[in-house]
Amino acid sequence: MGSQPNEPVLGQEFTQNVIDAMGPETPPRLRHVMASLIQHIHDFAREVQLTTDEWMAGVQLINRVGQMSNDTRNEGQLLSDVIGLESLVDDITFSAATKSAGGDGRAVTASAILGPFWRRDTPQRENGSSISFNTPADGQVVYMHGKVLEAGTNKPLSNATVDIWQASTNGLYEQQDPDQVEHNLRGIFRTDAEGNYALYCLKPTPYPVPTDGPAGQLLQMMDRHVFRPAHIHLLVKAEGYKPLTTQIFDKDCKYLHKDSVFAVKDELSVEFMPRQDRDPQASLELKYDVMLAKSA
Amino acid sequence: MGSQPNEPVLGQEFTQNVIDAMGPETPPRLRHVMASLIQHIHDFAREVQLTTDEWMAGVQLINRVGQMSNDTRNEGQLLSDVIGLESLVDDITFSAATKSAGGDGRAVTASAILGPFWRRDTPQRENGSSISFNTPADGQVVYMHGKVLEAGTNKPLSNATVDIWQASTNGLYEQQDPDQVEHNLRGIFRTDAEGNYALYCLKPTPYPVPTDGPAGQLLQMMDRHVFRPAHIHLLVKAEGYKPLTTQIFDKDCKYLHKDSVFAVKDELSVEFMPRQDRDPQASLELKYDVMLAKSA
Repeated sequence: MGSQPNEPVLGQEFTQNVIDAMGPETPPRLRHVMASLIQHIHDFAREVQLTTDEWMAGVQLINRVGQMSNDTRNEGQLLSDVIGLESLVDDITFSAATKSAGGDGRAVTASAILGPFWRRDTPQRENGSSISFNTPADGQVVYMHGKVLEAGTNKPLSNATVDIWQASTNGLYEQQDPDQVEHNLRGIFRTDAEGNYALYCLKPTPYPVPTDGPAGQLLQMMDRHVFRPAHIHLLVKAEGYKPLTTQIFDKDCKYLHKDSVFAVKDELSVEFMPRQDRDPQASLELKYDVMLAKSA
Repeated sequence: MGSQPNEPVLGQEFTQNVIDAMGPETPPRLRHVMASLIQHIHDFAREVQLTTDEWMAGVQLINRVGQMSNDTRNEGQLLSDVIGLESLVDDITFSAATKSAGGDGRAVTASAILGPFWRRDTPQRENGSSISFNTPADGQVVYMHGKVLEAGTNKPLSNATVDIWQASTNGLYEQQDPDQVEHNLRGIFRTDAEGNYALYCLKPTPYPVPTDGPAGQLLQMMDRHVFRPAHIHLLVKAEGYKPLTTQIFDKDCKYLHKDSVFAVKDELSVEFMPRQDRDPQASLELKYDVMLAKSA
């Protein structure tokens, strides 16, 4: 029993035993992921000398995360978002693989996280139509338009789809808000022969992430604010090109550099301008081109 | 963009930003724990180049863990048990702090994990009474007895409580099994003036951890068996001494060295012997002394 106090008996040999318990039929990728995860979780526990009370608080937080989740709410995703994990994984998966798209033209548009509010059943809409069916009194309508282009060559991509969604000025997406019609502030637009898309939407506004669950409690315990900077979500696809999931951010939003889910990248900030043409429908205008990378 | 493919743009600077988002009112211990946790989770994601699909599979597993948990089932605890985390944290919290209890007498009894089946409302029972009220046909009754002693001096501790619980031979604890009476196979015994406790219980048998939830699915994916070696749970308390949570294991159980939750320590294995005295109630006997460390 020669151990020193505060030097746990269960060191690396114990951790290796847990890793080595995986049997021969474990898929190689799962073995690689779980070995690293077990190693890092054990190293974390040893590094901070995690106590049983702290561990149990974590277990109860995880249980409450699941109990709070349902078809319209994904608290597990939110929990990982507030510690930056979705943004990191998004970057690993999408950005790193496409940064090197060369040529003399513009670079591939940066990716950002999908978030929990995308819907699989969003309707297609006509170019030039509006996604705002319950425009709130404090909402500013934007005419948003641009092209989908091939990165490197700037070749226009026709028949690309631009799936767009945003929260209303009350901070709620339509599936969270009984006062918005279904599919309000979301739609899928298809580019024309010159790669153009166009629609009316709202100038986005900042909003808090849900604070009534464990992710919100954790933010409060960490003395962090809960706001996401004003943004519009985009999911852009064209045949032969890598799908792009991203968000564009109002460059003047005061939360731009302190996103509660760490999704902002400098190159994704945009400026909403006064509408150039006479337009009874919109006071603001946003021209935004999306650059896609060819599929491998 | 000069980055190399597969070299994520979001490196340590990003991770430090997430850590630094904690505000000045964060309690120091929470800041220390969360900083280490965020660092290790980000390092894990970078190390294995975690993809968004893999991350989402993990998020969904976490959500299902909570959805499966209720008053009688703690799937979050089970999930952390099968990756060895509860055993590690138990060791950090209890063992390391008491290993150095010196003297010429016997060493402090090693701790082991509490597990999810302890109950707060277990009844006190008379020394020499049985905890088996529904003895199954395949059950072997054991007369278990011993002393609670001070480690280092071997001084007997009177008025100590020995809280004991075990599964039946069908692998179920009474709260999981409608065919067992409430509080079957559990009880609290109080030591007499010489530090003795005594009771009748069952020879423990190995059983599988619950396999119908995400922890069981993970075990299956990792090609691991699901059995716990045969064991009896003990929670021993005496005034002026550190409470001890532990388990004792049948040394002949075939799962002794491959516990699905990694709780076994060599010094906690015991041998069930034929009952020495003529005893119509029991065919087996177990003499087991518990050594407690003084409170700091």
